[in-house]
Amino acid sequence: MTDAPVLQRCAEFIANLTYEAIPEDVRREAQNALGDFVAVTMPGAVMPVSEDILRYVKTRPSEDPCVLFGEDATADAVSACLFNGTASHSLDFDDTAPSSMGHPTVSIAPAVFAAAAERQKDGQALITAYVAGLEVMHQISRLCMPEVSQAGWHTTLAFGAFGAAAAASSLYEASVDECAWALGISATTAGGVRANFGTKTKALHAGLSAANGIQNAKLAACGITANPAAFEASDGFMQCFSRLDAFKEDEIRLGTFWDLREKGLNFKSYPCCSGSHPAIEALTIYREEHGLKAEDIESIHCGVSLLSPRELTCHRPQNAVEGKFSMEYALSSLLIYGHVGLDSFTDEKVRNPAIQDFMGKISMAIDDELAALGFIGYAPVKMTIKMRDGSEVKLRRMRAKGRPELPLTLEEHQAKFFDCMRYAGCEAHAQSWWDILSNLKDASASDVARIGRAKARKCY
Amino acid sequence: MTDAPVLQRCAEFIANLTYEAIPEDVRREAQNALGDFVAVTMPGAVMPVSEDILRYVKTRPSEDPCVLFGEDATADAVSACLFNGTASHSLDFDDTAPSSMGHPTVSIAPAVFAAAAERQKDGQALITAYVAGLEVMHQISRLCMPEVSQAGWHTTLAFGAFGAAAAASSLYEASVDECAWALGISATTAGGVRANFGTKTKALHAGLSAANGIQNAKLAACGITANPAAFEASDGFMQCFSRLDAFKEDEIRLGTFWDLREKGLNFKSYPCCSGSHPAIEALTIYREEHGLKAEDIESIHCGVSLLSPRELTCHRPQNAVEGKFSMEYALSSLLIYGHVGLDSFTDEKVRNPAIQDFMGKISMAIDDELAALGFIGYAPVKMTIKMRDGSEVKLRRMRAKGRPELPLTLEEHQAKFFDCMRYAGCEAHAQSWWDILSNLKDASASDVARIGRAKARKCY
Repeated sequence: MTDAPVLQRCAEFIANLTYEAIPEDVRREAQNALGDFVAVTMPGAVMPVSEDILRYVKTRPSEDPCVLFGEDATADAVSACLFNGTASHSLDFDDTAPSSMGHPTVSIAPAVFAAAAERQKDGQALITAYVAGLEVMHQISRLCMPEVSQAGWHTTLAFGAFGAAAAASSLYEASVDECAWALGISATTAGGVRANFGTKTKALHAGLSAANGIQNAKLAACGITANPAAFEASDGFMQCFSRLDAFKEDEIRLGTFWDLREKGLNFKSYPCCSGSHPAIEALTIYREEHGLKAEDIESIHCGVSLLSPRELTCHRPQNAVEGKFSMEYALSSLLIYGHVGLDSFTDEKVRNPAIQDFMGKISMAIDDELAALGFIGYAPVKMTIKMRDGSEVKLRRMRAKGRPELPLTLEEHQAKFFDCMRYAGCEAHAQSWWDILSNLKDASASDVARIGRAKARKCY
Repeated sequence: MTDAPVLQRCAEFIANLTYEAIPEDVRREAQNALGDFVAVTMPGAVMPVSEDILRYVKTRPSEDPCVLFGEDATADAVSACLFNGTASHSLDFDDTAPSSMGHPTVSIAPAVFAAAAERQKDGQALITAYVAGLEVMHQISRLCMPEVSQAGWHTTLAFGAFGAAAAASSLYEASVDECAWALGISATTAGGVRANFGTKTKALHAGLSAANGIQNAKLAACGITANPAAFEASDGFMQCFSRLDAFKEDEIRLGTFWDLREKGLNFKSYPCCSGSHPAIEALTIYREEHGLKAEDIESIHCGVSLLSPRELTCHRPQNAVEGKFSMEYALSSLLIYGHVGLDSFTDEKVRNPAIQDFMGKISMAIDDELAALGFIGYAPVKMTIKMRDGSEVKLRRMRAKGRPELPLTLEEHQAKFFDCMRYAGCEAHAQSWWDILSNLKDASASDVARIGRAKARKCY
């Protein structure tokens, strides 16, 4: 580790990063993330929490060109980040990542789209800004995780503004000093207590981190100074948020170690807590191969690892939000309704007596063998299905598709994109936006400016 | 302590508080605080950090009626809070308080003036909202201080949004639920690392807490829910910010214990760190009585308590900001220039060779007797002045004027107000604003709307 403060090193990386310097596979993962962001934000824009934010944003009208996704309207950059960030996180269908153990793209991408709209930037600038934001956010995360999460913070808001500020600074072509100040101010605006999970404020955390990040980049551009050592200095971010007195990693390797390649992102195939995804997949595959029917099942037991019971806390969910954090509901939805999709998560579908009844057949407990893997971020499962005829089926799955070890194919990304656009009532735009987003390096500024600009409605 | 969550209890206090229910001495202290806020904000509005914020705010024009103090212009409420909060803290001339060990009024008062302008509220509503904000902010502080400060947080931003959200909610006539949500969202937006002291971000902390607080009240009014137990719940504010597992106080006594009466505010007579104030006062009194001259002094030694060296860190200051945190500069300014006022804190005056030379005669060290008092918030001093003729003078002062135990008189408040207005080039408004602010209970909404609305300039 050199003597230069962490945020100073990050600032130099942001200010000097060019599209050409980014490896091809890293560019491709950035493109995947931006496409996935657009997909999940469109149906998210009509969720109740997004409608609340829209009412707030509309109290501050502006002539600015930053698109409010799913609203066919524009706003100032801070308002657009607040709305788009909240909307993109409202379905819990957005990406997650091992380095921050949180949701990186819902903080970074809103700032990328808003700053690009302000400065009329093209697809290559978008990719470069996203990479700057993600790599900085995750470099910072790796220095003090998992301690920040263990202390009680929602890492999306604890780290997110660093990423959003970095991305916006890249598009604003900020100087090294301005980048460092924007990150130093982000140390001051970091927050997010996990005690607000289960309320609308959880989705708001993504909106706040994006809005704070772009605001901090703007404040730095206006001359507001901050301490480039605000990460590791006494009474700085690391002390306040992680209680660590030494970095978890001993090197800042921005530009040589690419987090998007080495650690990667997890893209979701199901719009609910990722702790249930391996179980959903294992059961989906078996069901398709063997024609499993709900009425033939006596019981299902899921052996899980240590993290799952901390995330999947709702065993008898009564509404859509609780249903997203329930292994019992996910598997019941698959077996009764035939799939786990956006339309599975309505209050009515969760309260269906057949579902409520079937959930009683499902149990979950920590499995000794899986617990021995430690406090891991993925969710391996060992399932035992007892049939009414006395037979027994055993299934096992370590990881869900969408994780870096088992990435979604281009076709799967595309299918998710078109599915989300359909549920948002925006099929008419799906092909043209997909063409832009799946070949982003050739997108012009006016191509970029069209993305998200359509009126969404809830089509399920 | 009842079972109701802390923020729920606070919400009930805010929603039910009436002007009539506030004791007369508490109302008077609120009026003093609002008057002092106006005084320090006017010259603060033309400091460099305020000019930076103004550039940022002007990128978001609006038709809203919230006054930008010292600008003769209006803006939306969030922008006005950001600007006025930062301006009011930029001189370090604003009040402090024992309960939060920070600066309460620079977080609360901007929200009071902005929300009052939006809703055309009168002086009694202003006082009621300020009291709601201060009492809630300090009730929360007393439950977890000094641990929050010891952990590294700048308490102005850690606690300030609770106060600003409470004050705005009072003026918005929010329901109990909306008040609780506004406070719950404030747990999520709390932050402020002290590592940013010494940069422009320090003053920004006041602007951010005011802006976050009023934004959180607006978000709650739009339907954004939060956890009313977000203060004491697992992974909540108290755990994240203080690391305590039990309250420091065992009762929530809002409406029976009045912090403004029992703990009170400290109003500054000198625009610099309060750690030097008892020494400045002791020397001022002796100098006036005995005609002490700089050229007759061989040396001055200040024996101080434990906190002073942590605050007065600049022993050979080279600019105005460093000068504000220097015992040596404060006493040299008094003896060379004849006083310690707003005009003492310019880069030029700090760099004056006569001053730089005289600072070498001044020393400061912890005194055993004063250290035995513990980690106290006031700054007792024992001074020994050695004269060139060999004689020695000993002075001693426990507290500066302006503290609750030794309050400023009405005349002293008024003198500070007129002095600040003069330094801001706004003498023309001084008498009419003072008439409104010193009899606030009779002020109409249109009286209130005039306050702060003048163009300031730096007159020194």
